[in-house]
Amino acid sequence: MDFETHFSTRLAALKEEGNYRVFADIERRRGAFPTAGRHRDGEVQDVTVWCSNDYLGMSQHPDVVGAMVETVQSCGTGAGGTRNISGNTVHHLALERELADLHGKEAALLFTSGYVSNWASLSTLGSQIPNVAIFSDEKNHASMIEGIRHSRADKVLWRHNDWRDLDRKLHAAGDRPKLVAFESVYSMDGDIAPIREIVEVCEAHGALSYIDEVHAVGMYGPRGGGVSEERGLAHRIDLIEGTLGKAYGVVGGYVTGSTALCDFIRSFASGFIFTTALPPAVAAAARASIAHLKGSGQERQQQRARVAELRAKLDRAGIPHMANDSHIIPVMIGDPVKCKMISDILMRDHGIYVQPINYPTVPKGTERLRITPGPLHGTAEIDHLVGALSQLWAHCALSRAVA
Amino acid sequence: MDFETHFSTRLAALKEEGNYRVFADIERRRGAFPTAGRHRDGEVQDVTVWCSNDYLGMSQHPDVVGAMVETVQSCGTGAGGTRNISGNTVHHLALERELADLHGKEAALLFTSGYVSNWASLSTLGSQIPNVAIFSDEKNHASMIEGIRHSRADKVLWRHNDWRDLDRKLHAAGDRPKLVAFESVYSMDGDIAPIREIVEVCEAHGALSYIDEVHAVGMYGPRGGGVSEERGLAHRIDLIEGTLGKAYGVVGGYVTGSTALCDFIRSFASGFIFTTALPPAVAAAARASIAHLKGSGQERQQQRARVAELRAKLDRAGIPHMANDSHIIPVMIGDPVKCKMISDILMRDHGIYVQPINYPTVPKGTERLRITPGPLHGTAEIDHLVGALSQLWAHCALSRAVA
Repeated sequence: MDFETHFSTRLAALKEEGNYRVFADIERRRGAFPTAGRHRDGEVQDVTVWCSNDYLGMSQHPDVVGAMVETVQSCGTGAGGTRNISGNTVHHLALERELADLHGKEAALLFTSGYVSNWASLSTLGSQIPNVAIFSDEKNHASMIEGIRHSRADKVLWRHNDWRDLDRKLHAAGDRPKLVAFESVYSMDGDIAPIREIVEVCEAHGALSYIDEVHAVGMYGPRGGGVSEERGLAHRIDLIEGTLGKAYGVVGGYVTGSTALCDFIRSFASGFIFTTALPPAVAAAARASIAHLKGSGQERQQQRARVAELRAKLDRAGIPHMANDSHIIPVMIGDPVKCKMISDILMRDHGIYVQPINYPTVPKGTERLRITPGPLHGTAEIDHLVGALSQLWAHCALSRAVA
Repeated sequence: MDFETHFSTRLAALKEEGNYRVFADIERRRGAFPTAGRHRDGEVQDVTVWCSNDYLGMSQHPDVVGAMVETVQSCGTGAGGTRNISGNTVHHLALERELADLHGKEAALLFTSGYVSNWASLSTLGSQIPNVAIFSDEKNHASMIEGIRHSRADKVLWRHNDWRDLDRKLHAAGDRPKLVAFESVYSMDGDIAPIREIVEVCEAHGALSYIDEVHAVGMYGPRGGGVSEERGLAHRIDLIEGTLGKAYGVVGGYVTGSTALCDFIRSFASGFIFTTALPPAVAAAARASIAHLKGSGQERQQQRARVAELRAKLDRAGIPHMANDSHIIPVMIGDPVKCKMISDILMRDHGIYVQPINYPTVPKGTERLRITPGPLHGTAEIDHLVGALSQLWAHCALSRAVA
């Protein structure tokens, strides 16, 4: 087989259908976020970043930057091994205590990323609980899908956010062990799950409940414990998974739950055992970020205000966006080539960086711009964005929402 | 089902067989490595770390620490998104160019860890090359095994390092697409693959060759390009995988190969696409480390000298260790409980930290201490280690090697 030809042919097909990804080349600047430098052809252009998952700008917060710098200086740059073999440090342990406290759980377990935390935990639970069936919301993230797939447990999809459908399917499964996996805030549509109803259904069927709060931790709940904290439900959910790479502004993932549950995953998950621990400095920075957002509600309030302001102005301008209760504003385009083109024009002519979101991140035909306003976006920047979009909508004759 | 009881029962069984893992609680100290603080019951004990994969002590190198600190200060702590969605920075791109150059390849692709680089790349190649069969050395690392398993491609195990067996099995497979996956230095036995013979067999059968050099990059070859560089074979291998978390002293993983191969994995690997990029500061630190070890052979020479010194002294003391051509010295114990006990005594009575290596990291019955001398271990520390082991061997009446 000619492998090179196979690779090139597949890549050409992606380009043909408009789904080939071109990465923007960005230089983050501490203190200037959401402004960044965009490198192209040897030039640097100032751009406003509107699509970051550094939702609260915590990656430039002085406490977080300070903790990372200080720990690099005191401990060095890396952990030097897996958690079991010389890579376990006081900083990892302190962060796990902080995370357990954040969600009101007995224990927490750190992973190298949110993707790995979902993949490793679900593949371990699915393969190490005899005869378990996993009930997965049909819009769950790729990391959950791959974890379930890897476990080879029986998988039952339930309709997105439809707890009645879940209830029926759990009932139909009889009395085998059951695990229910879902998210609180769905990344691409920004909708929020009916967590209370789902939890009640889980309790009624004795199912283990597993919630992914990666797009909620830091941003929802009085201490940033996510939607499960905001709604007073954290203690009724068996496993809460989260990330340190979005609102907390660093990198890494985790699960929290009972001591036995976390120890079980710690002891059997290949993706936890056989990998180098995060750098101590990353753990220290994440801990500083969590600690700050436990005590400060200001960033959350500001974010909410900015989201409301942008939504209102998009409405006035007749730019269609998907309604939801979260901080994520999807502006629907519905075509991969158009979506990329609009994104390119925004960047080139307006210094606005919003990455086109195409397949496989979203289903074909639902291509979109995904806008994430944060506390550091000002009114001038919001007006600039809405003005640019309005111009484009006029030029491209894209369908306007009914104003 | 009572999940808590299931978790507890499985954990109790691990404890019973001696395979329950207790993490040592270590505080790394920049400038003092291999000395570290061990925290226990509120006290801090000075220990010498003998089991780190920070093989060359690069995690405390001034260039590496400096690059990380400087980049945290200029860019902040996190990337803020996936590579595709606002997380791609000049630092990631510069590191990928550095890595491509290191291995003499057209391109490189960065992952959040070495584990993820193997898992994601093999699962993508195995699932996206129609009808491919993957020929996997029977001692390949967990991350490769899980990647192959996840791809659901046909898998053929070949006898460890036995290129004749590989040749037979490739021949028997007929003319379907074939991928051969193996490592250069095997982590737990420290033996090195007959790379030339394996590559020739791959070429004869038109198989795609995939080598894992995680325990070799930085340490072998005139520029640290691994055993494939040392033996002048890098250009004949299709994909070279490595880590930034061992000899380079930071965290992260990567693959290098042709432009089309890397772009193919970049475009189709779920574990690459759907995960937050490494912090820019991690990328900058890794790049500084690679650049330093490209130009400096001193750390490699020192490491070799220390390894030879420890081996010779172990031989004189009659402490049995596995022969190999690498920097990894496995002292065989052959029992999980004894292995943990010896490790505990070394730590408690001698301030020597060597983690016991038990199942599932090594097969049952081959439990061992895995010692990794580096350029920063001095003669006094080597003598102290050999003295402590000799005492223990006398006390525990462990079988001595024929001197």
